[in-house]
Amino acid sequence: MEDIFTIHHRDTKSYARCGELKTAHGTFPTPMFMPVGTRAAVKALDPDDLKALGAKIVLSNTYHLMCRPGEDLISQMGGLHKFMGWDGPILTDSGGFQVFSLKNLRRIEEDSVIFQSPYDGSKYTFTPLRALKVQEKLGSDIMMCLDEPLGYPAGEKESQAAMDRTLRWAEMTIKHWDQKGDKLLFGISQGGFYPQLREKSAQDIASLGFAGNAAGGLALGEPQDLRISAIQASLASFPLEKPRYLMGLGTPLDLLDGIRLGADLFDCVLPTRNGRNGQFFTKHGKINIANSRYRSDPLPIDENCKCRCCQNFSRSYLRHLYSNREPLFPRLASIHNLYFYLELMEGARLALREGNYMCYHKEFYNAYQNGPQDEAF
Amino acid sequence: MEDIFTIHHRDTKSYARCGELKTAHGTFPTPMFMPVGTRAAVKALDPDDLKALGAKIVLSNTYHLMCRPGEDLISQMGGLHKFMGWDGPILTDSGGFQVFSLKNLRRIEEDSVIFQSPYDGSKYTFTPLRALKVQEKLGSDIMMCLDEPLGYPAGEKESQAAMDRTLRWAEMTIKHWDQKGDKLLFGISQGGFYPQLREKSAQDIASLGFAGNAAGGLALGEPQDLRISAIQASLASFPLEKPRYLMGLGTPLDLLDGIRLGADLFDCVLPTRNGRNGQFFTKHGKINIANSRYRSDPLPIDENCKCRCCQNFSRSYLRHLYSNREPLFPRLASIHNLYFYLELMEGARLALREGNYMCYHKEFYNAYQNGPQDEAF
Repeated sequence: MEDIFTIHHRDTKSYARCGELKTAHGTFPTPMFMPVGTRAAVKALDPDDLKALGAKIVLSNTYHLMCRPGEDLISQMGGLHKFMGWDGPILTDSGGFQVFSLKNLRRIEEDSVIFQSPYDGSKYTFTPLRALKVQEKLGSDIMMCLDEPLGYPAGEKESQAAMDRTLRWAEMTIKHWDQKGDKLLFGISQGGFYPQLREKSAQDIASLGFAGNAAGGLALGEPQDLRISAIQASLASFPLEKPRYLMGLGTPLDLLDGIRLGADLFDCVLPTRNGRNGQFFTKHGKINIANSRYRSDPLPIDENCKCRCCQNFSRSYLRHLYSNREPLFPRLASIHNLYFYLELMEGARLALREGNYMCYHKEFYNAYQNGPQDEAF
Repeated sequence: MEDIFTIHHRDTKSYARCGELKTAHGTFPTPMFMPVGTRAAVKALDPDDLKALGAKIVLSNTYHLMCRPGEDLISQMGGLHKFMGWDGPILTDSGGFQVFSLKNLRRIEEDSVIFQSPYDGSKYTFTPLRALKVQEKLGSDIMMCLDEPLGYPAGEKESQAAMDRTLRWAEMTIKHWDQKGDKLLFGISQGGFYPQLREKSAQDIASLGFAGNAAGGLALGEPQDLRISAIQASLASFPLEKPRYLMGLGTPLDLLDGIRLGADLFDCVLPTRNGRNGQFFTKHGKINIANSRYRSDPLPIDENCKCRCCQNFSRSYLRHLYSNREPLFPRLASIHNLYFYLELMEGARLALREGNYMCYHKEFYNAYQNGPQDEAF
């Protein structure tokens, strides 16, 4: 396999770097944020919207698509790209997080998870090889190994067991992986919130020779300091020359810290989900549009933002739409928030090219933390 | 006031005509369909979407905007056009239909309706002059008089009383109407399902000299034949040279019949509301996407349709979105259905220019009625 990942610049004051990643459906710059299209659709946005926002890759979910509408149907319809009308790169998460979130509906065995579909109660047996097979049928460009993430808190023994199982599953997956064309397979490391386990898991996963390496099991309720040390321990143990994916994170500040610690790829539901719940992200903090102080506010969410929402609509109008549950609201909120996240990444790449990433990081932190911090409902 | 309405062609085999209507926010061709943006937003679509679909005028609702967010707030924000980001013509319905639908929440007095807001229980007194005042504050281009529509069935005496009250209210409204710039005021005729009352009401309303005349109180549960004769009796009694607005209708066939009987303007929630409920309109009938026969159907809703939904997505994908209540679904369904309605009007205008409207009418009827007639849920 030719080199799929090129690093153009490395920061001298942190582990941050910028580069580009080549996939079967196109090359995109890193660091990059991936909008989440869980069920083969980013909520309230179509592929033309995503392109207009500057999205270069979207994430979808193996587990959800396997349950509904099923990988065979998507394959029969020409694969996930054609099905959802998106011709750019697609990364599919394996579904480990979703399956392990089912709690009462699943049973973990050594090499499989048996679970009941929350959609219709059907029983599924999910194995590392099934997760791979489903992703191959979907035709995703970047496939993820099945892993076992644990939320916070989890004991050391439990974290060790989940990490060992995740490693064994990764070994099984790469052994059965039949590399075709430019399709990529990434491994996922775990290790809970124990830096030594994080390091060990990352080293073990990296040693298997995946095209890229991910750190999973984060942003699951842990305090900020534990998160940072877990990220640090994971990413520092991955090889420099391969892409690093920090799964499921996070707030704008989480993303900037992730980049500082050497991450290249991110995904998170915050911009779309919190958007639907009335929360807008800006360089000057967070705005909850339900707040009555925005009732007659003629300003856009952010006067300097170039997104279609800010170019056309006032806070007053957005509050009206939100208060009356107008279906247009989730669309406009998602447009602003995704634009903001994608622009945050673009700013980071530019700062990396210009060699001043930590200034960008610091300036963003200061402005963001000094602004309003309205929470989402 | 200069001539705002120009008729370019009149059909020789029916009462149909095509022309153009000039408003303070632009001139548009007729016959025309107006997408419904009840609360200052067409459900799930933004103004750029509407422009891309070819919409030339949108309808909004006085009653709803008066309750939420209030006409004073909208006026303070620069008027309805600026508030909702739509710089084309806006027609506002008076809200008579909505107020009279409240049943248990309202009390009709001679010159007013007292009602409780279904939003928050606040008490409002709605009068013909209040309806006018609110619309002036909103800045709508075409304002409608307050009327009293009755649903089907309604007795002759009751219909006569409502029609008399509607006439008195129309007289009060036009008397207090302070014509400014190119703003237009339309009268609304009633008369239930009694052709003689319909004729009388239409003549009386027309005699007051409004810029345009509307027939209201239709598509409220009446059988097709009663509807047709009520439309006929109303429209035929309006002067030829003024625009005629057939309120709240309807199915594609209703629209073509309305044009045949001389209507120039239409509005209806069917394309957006039924779209949200899974129903797509096509030249070959109606499709309910929930039907299992579309599960693995790779075709678009209509192979010959040029809308963004049909150009990009299969029935299979749309069914998947609908079944999983993805917020993208209402958007795509509304895009297709509104495109279809607007194209239906464009086809009618073309046929009128070419002098073969009744052929267009007949061909459309045949193809539409011979296709599937899946109902919406």
